[in-house]
Amino acid sequence: MTHRISEHAFDDDEIQVSWSDGRRSVYHHLWLRDNCSSDLHPQTMERTGDVQRVDPAIRPTSVAVDGDGGLLVRWPDRHVSRYAPDWLRRYCYTELSRNERRAAPNLWSAAIANDLPQADHNDIMESDAGLLDFLELLRGNGFCLVRNMPEDDQACQRVAGRIAYLRETNFGVDFTVASKPEPNNNAYTAIELPVHTDLANREMPPGIQFLHCVEFEASGGQSVLVDGFRVAALLREESRHSFDLLTRVPIPFRFHDTEWDVRWRAPMLALDGDGVLAEIRYNNALMAPLEVAPELVKPVYAAIRAFARILKDPLGELRLTMAPGDMLAFHNRRILHGRSAFDPNTGPRKLRGCYVDVDEMMSRIRVLKGENLLR
Amino acid sequence: MTHRISEHAFDDDEIQVSWSDGRRSVYHHLWLRDNCSSDLHPQTMERTGDVQRVDPAIRPTSVAVDGDGGLLVRWPDRHVSRYAPDWLRRYCYTELSRNERRAAPNLWSAAIANDLPQADHNDIMESDAGLLDFLELLRGNGFCLVRNMPEDDQACQRVAGRIAYLRETNFGVDFTVASKPEPNNNAYTAIELPVHTDLANREMPPGIQFLHCVEFEASGGQSVLVDGFRVAALLREESRHSFDLLTRVPIPFRFHDTEWDVRWRAPMLALDGDGVLAEIRYNNALMAPLEVAPELVKPVYAAIRAFARILKDPLGELRLTMAPGDMLAFHNRRILHGRSAFDPNTGPRKLRGCYVDVDEMMSRIRVLKGENLLR
Repeated sequence: MTHRISEHAFDDDEIQVSWSDGRRSVYHHLWLRDNCSSDLHPQTMERTGDVQRVDPAIRPTSVAVDGDGGLLVRWPDRHVSRYAPDWLRRYCYTELSRNERRAAPNLWSAAIANDLPQADHNDIMESDAGLLDFLELLRGNGFCLVRNMPEDDQACQRVAGRIAYLRETNFGVDFTVASKPEPNNNAYTAIELPVHTDLANREMPPGIQFLHCVEFEASGGQSVLVDGFRVAALLREESRHSFDLLTRVPIPFRFHDTEWDVRWRAPMLALDGDGVLAEIRYNNALMAPLEVAPELVKPVYAAIRAFARILKDPLGELRLTMAPGDMLAFHNRRILHGRSAFDPNTGPRKLRGCYVDVDEMMSRIRVLKGENLLR
Repeated sequence: MTHRISEHAFDDDEIQVSWSDGRRSVYHHLWLRDNCSSDLHPQTMERTGDVQRVDPAIRPTSVAVDGDGGLLVRWPDRHVSRYAPDWLRRYCYTELSRNERRAAPNLWSAAIANDLPQADHNDIMESDAGLLDFLELLRGNGFCLVRNMPEDDQACQRVAGRIAYLRETNFGVDFTVASKPEPNNNAYTAIELPVHTDLANREMPPGIQFLHCVEFEASGGQSVLVDGFRVAALLREESRHSFDLLTRVPIPFRFHDTEWDVRWRAPMLALDGDGVLAEIRYNNALMAPLEVAPELVKPVYAAIRAFARILKDPLGELRLTMAPGDMLAFHNRRILHGRSAFDPNTGPRKLRGCYVDVDEMMSRIRVLKGENLLR
């Protein structure tokens, strides 16, 4: 959609713009001067201008609209800046416009089993449209089941590689989840894994996790996914105090073995700069002893218990038994995952896993949509 | 140092402990039961217990100190937990003990040129003690100069590899900083690079950066480092309002070219969960148009200008001209780096670079000190 400026006026601070669809915008003179395209490096398109060199009281000498609908602003030094109408609309910063650009996630509960977000391996590998469909399902729901995976150990990395390079961790570039001798983490045993987010002990736990079922003959080992954003929203309704504590109080997590000692303290629920819930960090197995002010010990434990109680409500659990050829892709800082215990004596259960970060996924989505080419 | 419990008592909520050195601690019953070592998996040492299964009103039936100084706590279900005195002291959560464990950084200004933190390549590569000395200098000052590097293109990665695997980004696992044809970022030109943190457009910009000078015959191209933590502390003194705005208001950053479009919005100054300054995110070249509420446009610009003015004060700048064989290692989210313009017609200037994340550096320090072996 192309937007057209229908009216404009300016005062000492800003230019007011009315659009053909009725929307109204304001653009501060300082903001406009700071975003003049003539201050971009001609090859890298990175900024070479600096707001430090602009008079904070700058005011145009004239404002006009040109024949192609662009906003022409003449500055006291005679420099003329031109702003394309689509660019101005894209970066309009009124509350209405900023809210419009914020995509709300689709919160889900157990009923999503009837309408699973799913994609086919070959569509992802063979076409950009298939890849984009998969990524949009993954972004909106926090997970997507991929069917029809080849049985080899590298298939998981090849799908992840359609997005970008992998995120390496102390468990390697990729890893095998199976019952192993001398395990260094609970995933490498056959015990139940209560739902959790992986690597909560890291400054930034991995964003997108892939788990490809390569072999599965054991009894038990059902997979469980829970939408942590929905759980946090329910906690907020039930106890605003507990919710606020979990967004504010850093909880220590730690993984250590003979080669590593990775620790981080961060709230279990993180809000972004707009106050919107941005991520869940919950892994009971990796919790280190609480180090909070003594008066917070009981309230923080109560808040963790309240969160965990909702987390384990079957109404929120998607339970599914993966078969060889299935792969789960999920947002590790939104969707909690776990499994029931399995009996390794009844046969193998082998998953192959790897991670890609959120930056890389979002960048791939933008590039597939051509947004990278827009200023 | 070994600590000895001299007195203990308990009430409905907690056990009060007095130590032989006069320190006093409190340990809540719930906290103690939640941290009983019998709830750790015997091989992985990860937790299998869950505070959800503990009665929040739990109270010991008796408390005693055993012959080796351990605290013995008998619970209503007759289970007896033992807590080693050193473990209890290590995790004591009174305000005094928590503050003691927090290491303050050494803030520095231009005068650090007279006493540069530096290390020798061979010491780092050949001994764990040399590696640990280097990492402690890097951690405390935010940077360390490494001398006597071999001249080959992989030397930088080999030093970083003494810590752990590298952090890959859209610029690769490693990269070459030189004047290139068709550059996709300003570092790959010969223009001045005002001080900045790398990859401010990412959710988590890389932690530790290595820049190894391999060739340098060009005129110009002096390196500049600035301690961003000191700059932020000065801003806080000068204008608490500007400081607070920069810790609170998300600033958009973006890198885009034909293959990538990586964007993130986050405050320029990040506080950790304790309210302590934790990182700087400042890169004028990658700033995208501000998307803040209209009433914040002028105050946010004023705050950015105030920060940038202190940032560019020569009193805070370490200026040095690297020579082949020198490498800078620095904390990319604390220390800002830049260079003056150089003339590529006077000869080559080639740096090799790579990144390692903070988790990996901190883990390596702990493992070198044997802390990973402690519960």
